[in-house]
Amino acid sequence: MFSLNDYKKLTEPESVALIGVTRRTGKGSNNPLEVLLEWGYQGKVYPVNLKGGSILGHRAYTSVQDIPEVPDLAVICAPRDAVPGLFTQCAERGIKLVVITAQGFFDGDERGKLMQKDILSTAACWGVRILGPNTLGVVNNFNHFCASFMRFINTVSATGILCQSGVFTVGASQIYNGIGLLIDTGNTTDIDCADLLRYLARDPRLKVINIHMESLKDGQKFMQAARDATALRPVVIYKTGASPTGSVAASSHTGSLSGDDKIFDTAFKQCSLFRAKDIEEINDLNKIFSTFHGINGKNVGVVSISGGAAIIAVDACTRYGLEVAQLSKPTMDLLREMIPEWAHYGNPIDMWPAGMFHGYHHAYRRILEAVIADPLVDSVICITSSFLDEEGDFLDTTEIIREVARNNPEKPIVAWTYGARFQDYAQKFEQENNVVYYYSIDRAARALSALYKYHHVIKKKDNQPVSLPINSGQILVNKLLAGTVKGNLELTRVFEILESYGIPVARWGKAENINEAVLLAEKIGYPVSIKVSSPQIIHKSDVGGVRLNIDSTEQLKENYQDMIRDIKSQHSDVKIDGVVIQEYLSGGTELLLGGKKDPQFGPVLAFGAGGIFTEVLKDVSLGIPPLSSEELKNMIEKTKVGKILAGVRGTPKVNIDVLVEILTYLSQLMLANPSISEIDINPLLAYTERVVALDARIILA
Amino acid sequence: MFSLNDYKKLTEPESVALIGVTRRTGKGSNNPLEVLLEWGYQGKVYPVNLKGGSILGHRAYTSVQDIPEVPDLAVICAPRDAVPGLFTQCAERGIKLVVITAQGFFDGDERGKLMQKDILSTAACWGVRILGPNTLGVVNNFNHFCASFMRFINTVSATGILCQSGVFTVGASQIYNGIGLLIDTGNTTDIDCADLLRYLARDPRLKVINIHMESLKDGQKFMQAARDATALRPVVIYKTGASPTGSVAASSHTGSLSGDDKIFDTAFKQCSLFRAKDIEEINDLNKIFSTFHGINGKNVGVVSISGGAAIIAVDACTRYGLEVAQLSKPTMDLLREMIPEWAHYGNPIDMWPAGMFHGYHHAYRRILEAVIADPLVDSVICITSSFLDEEGDFLDTTEIIREVARNNPEKPIVAWTYGARFQDYAQKFEQENNVVYYYSIDRAARALSALYKYHHVIKKKDNQPVSLPINSGQILVNKLLAGTVKGNLELTRVFEILESYGIPVARWGKAENINEAVLLAEKIGYPVSIKVSSPQIIHKSDVGGVRLNIDSTEQLKENYQDMIRDIKSQHSDVKIDGVVIQEYLSGGTELLLGGKKDPQFGPVLAFGAGGIFTEVLKDVSLGIPPLSSEELKNMIEKTKVGKILAGVRGTPKVNIDVLVEILTYLSQLMLANPSISEIDINPLLAYTERVVALDARIILA
Repeated sequence: MFSLNDYKKLTEPESVALIGVTRRTGKGSNNPLEVLLEWGYQGKVYPVNLKGGSILGHRAYTSVQDIPEVPDLAVICAPRDAVPGLFTQCAERGIKLVVITAQGFFDGDERGKLMQKDILSTAACWGVRILGPNTLGVVNNFNHFCASFMRFINTVSATGILCQSGVFTVGASQIYNGIGLLIDTGNTTDIDCADLLRYLARDPRLKVINIHMESLKDGQKFMQAARDATALRPVVIYKTGASPTGSVAASSHTGSLSGDDKIFDTAFKQCSLFRAKDIEEINDLNKIFSTFHGINGKNVGVVSISGGAAIIAVDACTRYGLEVAQLSKPTMDLLREMIPEWAHYGNPIDMWPAGMFHGYHHAYRRILEAVIADPLVDSVICITSSFLDEEGDFLDTTEIIREVARNNPEKPIVAWTYGARFQDYAQKFEQENNVVYYYSIDRAARALSALYKYHHVIKKKDNQPVSLPINSGQILVNKLLAGTVKGNLELTRVFEILESYGIPVARWGKAENINEAVLLAEKIGYPVSIKVSSPQIIHKSDVGGVRLNIDSTEQLKENYQDMIRDIKSQHSDVKIDGVVIQEYLSGGTELLLGGKKDPQFGPVLAFGAGGIFTEVLKDVSLGIPPLSSEELKNMIEKTKVGKILAGVRGTPKVNIDVLVEILTYLSQLMLANPSISEIDINPLLAYTERVVALDARIILA
Repeated sequence: MFSLNDYKKLTEPESVALIGVTRRTGKGSNNPLEVLLEWGYQGKVYPVNLKGGSILGHRAYTSVQDIPEVPDLAVICAPRDAVPGLFTQCAERGIKLVVITAQGFFDGDERGKLMQKDILSTAACWGVRILGPNTLGVVNNFNHFCASFMRFINTVSATGILCQSGVFTVGASQIYNGIGLLIDTGNTTDIDCADLLRYLARDPRLKVINIHMESLKDGQKFMQAARDATALRPVVIYKTGASPTGSVAASSHTGSLSGDDKIFDTAFKQCSLFRAKDIEEINDLNKIFSTFHGINGKNVGVVSISGGAAIIAVDACTRYGLEVAQLSKPTMDLLREMIPEWAHYGNPIDMWPAGMFHGYHHAYRRILEAVIADPLVDSVICITSSFLDEEGDFLDTTEIIREVARNNPEKPIVAWTYGARFQDYAQKFEQENNVVYYYSIDRAARALSALYKYHHVIKKKDNQPVSLPINSGQILVNKLLAGTVKGNLELTRVFEILESYGIPVARWGKAENINEAVLLAEKIGYPVSIKVSSPQIIHKSDVGGVRLNIDSTEQLKENYQDMIRDIKSQHSDVKIDGVVIQEYLSGGTELLLGGKKDPQFGPVLAFGAGGIFTEVLKDVSLGIPPLSSEELKNMIEKTKVGKILAGVRGTPKVNIDVLVEILTYLSQLMLANPSISEIDINPLLAYTERVVALDARIILA
């Protein structure tokens, strides 16, 4: 078994073999040995090159067999056609961890795919773990280890990075402001993002972990690793490939309302990842998380050289759920003393008038010190200027701000400046690593809000998933699903499955002829509906297979005959399984409850507004089960129809607990029956105490 | 009369008096004369300083009376208490245009407000126009004129700027990448943003105009100026102060659903302004508009050093409504030739494999040249790297990209790089002003999309507002509103007003006693509803003042008595004006139609989902009348309920023309009756051919 500790051999091996390393050195040679030596790596290095000799003063072995010990790690840096052979040699030599850098395997043509399969079976046979193929390797700035043919900046930062593409590996210095540990997961044919996330989250040197994700194989495994990681460190994720990838048209509402990216988004939220929408947001979040250890609350003081910029700061705080702090009396008294009588005073603070009367530096220091000492203030946004030359110096308060930050490490200060020299000012602000500069006020507020969220929401919540027992109805469902084939289930069986699991269906029965229908209707009580049951009919109303609100035997007979005749005349090949006679219900709130099997994450639940306008309103929230009652309640409350259920303008309040119970049953049903690919319960009618399915469909994979 | 041409005296006066200019010079002196001389202004300058003598080699006049000519422009740079006196002297000297820089007038205390009123009456008396107070002045980089005590970068760009705060004036060099013409509108006590916008839009040296707006006095005037300007140039607006400013709780749905910022947003969209959400977006838009004269279409070629970054580019194009171009056969053939067989080829283009096999520079040039020559490609996003030292140079294609851009000026190329040296690369890309660098791919795509929108949507549309005739119902409405007071109108009068204007109301009549009610109900035909009519009752259902679906005389009598008794027992002081008996209608789609008088923009229309869930669904679009039928149709189609009206899953399609007609009547009603502050028609029921108001309220200001 490979333990978490074994991954250490990937990021700080005691010995490494560089297999197929080039003899070329210097500019453009992309020689990983050269990179490693430049970095000052202290472990043993064994270059392997068919021609032997020496490279950069190191003996080059002609084969991995000749290396005097079994190295912790082998890096195969040969072109793809040579990889399978070299990999087998590594395995035979007893090496347990191999990095493969070449492209052109699963990411390439048929031949590449075959070669990768070949490598995988060798690996399985010898118990070798693989990073890659198609990886730019590993960078460890703490221990000066770099297994890559590319050069990186070796600026140490408290940043852990997992990426799936060169752009995020090579661009890391720009994107993350330095690197602590970086691993390019490549094709993730074996070691994947989830494995490495668990590993990195336990490294005490890292303050924030980043993930760049293009694709994911095992969503559940990833979510569990992410849940564990976010309890330890903030984790930022950047998922690319959000555009629809030509997925097959879905046949249920749940299918069409839960696009790929929406499901990824739901998963990320459930395990408390920060999803960055672009590279700049990644950078912003890394800066705040690696600089500040915490924040006491969401009240922001704004100390601005300009009234106009102060307004922008208020907009930005509001946008990201922060509060513009009320100031306490001593601070307000100071402001009244410093600011001329004709000017407004209070938070946000426009420094200009006070600066005009008391000297800018003096005023800035006194006011900022008062604001940061104010118990009602948890963080400060400092807005200053970065003008040209002389005037600029006169207004340059970066030193004052850094000094105040140094004396008040528990209250984050972030800064923005305007004026031509902003790049210089950014550097000045950040030189002691106690103030963070942002390129806009909006980005500053967004970052503060994330810091607050991590320490006051994410860290405080129990992030572990619930476990759901097997529903006792499964025994019946096993029988009901036995012998079914791919596609649409007939209505009667759908109703039976729901009822087995405890999901109430409006009273119904199956009639095979008109007399049975009449008897059933009398038993159920008028008004009733008639619905055709056939595995070949997915959209019953589209073929005229639904008749609603029938309130006499006469009407029933007429509608029954009409309906069968209509369908048969238009679709002579349809096999009608029978007819469902069902209690007709009106009023109540129409809901959609659905489930869909996602290739990455498995079952996904959908809840939202039902009825004929489902697709127009698109009022749906998703959840990946198993979910706690609390999480299911949130799913309901997030939607607009959820607010209607809570009682609006005289409409009755619906008992949400009943609904949560039904969502739980649906979760169990989806989790226990992988053959179900889609379920729609629509409408599910909600009354004050009764929630009942009126129509539903199940599609088997 | 002040003509557009007269504003030229503000930005390029032949002579200017600097009144109250300081004798101090050098560092921190903020001396506008010094700034002006440094800039090399060619016109005549008359410094005025009480003590006379000379300043920087220029004779200082002790009074404006002594200046040998009437200057085109006077800039008063004295502290506020001296301003009224100096202003009067300017007026008496015959100066027609005065800039006042001091703070503390309408933006200050009561004394300041009084002083400003004083100045305004002097101005009116002598016919003087004022810029400011509280302005940092005027900058004209084309003619080296700068009327400000602050120093600016005098880099010329094709950018016109109107701003309302120091942050945007002093920060301009950072925000807009240089300045063409800049005017700080300050308190806009006289010359305002609309005046100057018309002026700047006609300056052929400017390619893009920018507005920073904190507040607005005359929304209609501004909209007309903006409509005119956007037909000539792209106009970018940054509106700050979006957070709710403690506005009084609204008493109608329309009121509560149309917040300040939503109305500004509607206005900006109607006159085709680009609203930037932050300073970075302003910068991005200015770069693209001042570099490229046009774009042929929305098809983007992506030439990327990294497959991972190419995916991000596809996401970004999709997000902003651009298309990832299909390539034509010759381009595809070239790619097939250059890219190794195992790798994918097509747009987006991952350059790495081709570069590996053919040399990076060679491959990049051939492929980029083919892509830009491809008739199916309208613009290109180039993604390249900005690595450290040697490897970086090997991959540095900035020169190739600039050269291709030089040869293909009609197809915009934008660039992004990743890697530590991105700032250097940004400069390299932009040095010939034919490629624009962006800090993220997302921002690059957003800018290209704006360029497309300006040239293919905004410039092609007829941006002039329609004019609506007076509705003939106004004669009746004059009578109905005569003698009414502030507040809620009684229901009967509301219905009469709507009907006067041609807005159909479900058949109704007023009954003053139970016998009248019975007769009316028989005349209207059962089922009917009963509604209380009282100016004191705004929310009838909240006091039990509505009884629906009554279908017999018996029920009517019972409900009538019940209702009156109920209301009287709970609200003994309420004056019941009578009772409305109204046709009860069911089915149809419930709509909200509303109007609200906005302090800036005047009447604002609202259209959306009606019924009891109006406030939960928040499915509302706004419009500022007068609007064309086309614009009203858009308002309807933008909402979700608009899609339902178009016919969804078997629901009947509603005749939108009927609805557009009613929206037009409502526009006329609001425009002709400024005393109406809010109207709600809710629900307005829409059937296939009939649209009818069921309930409504009107609130008078």
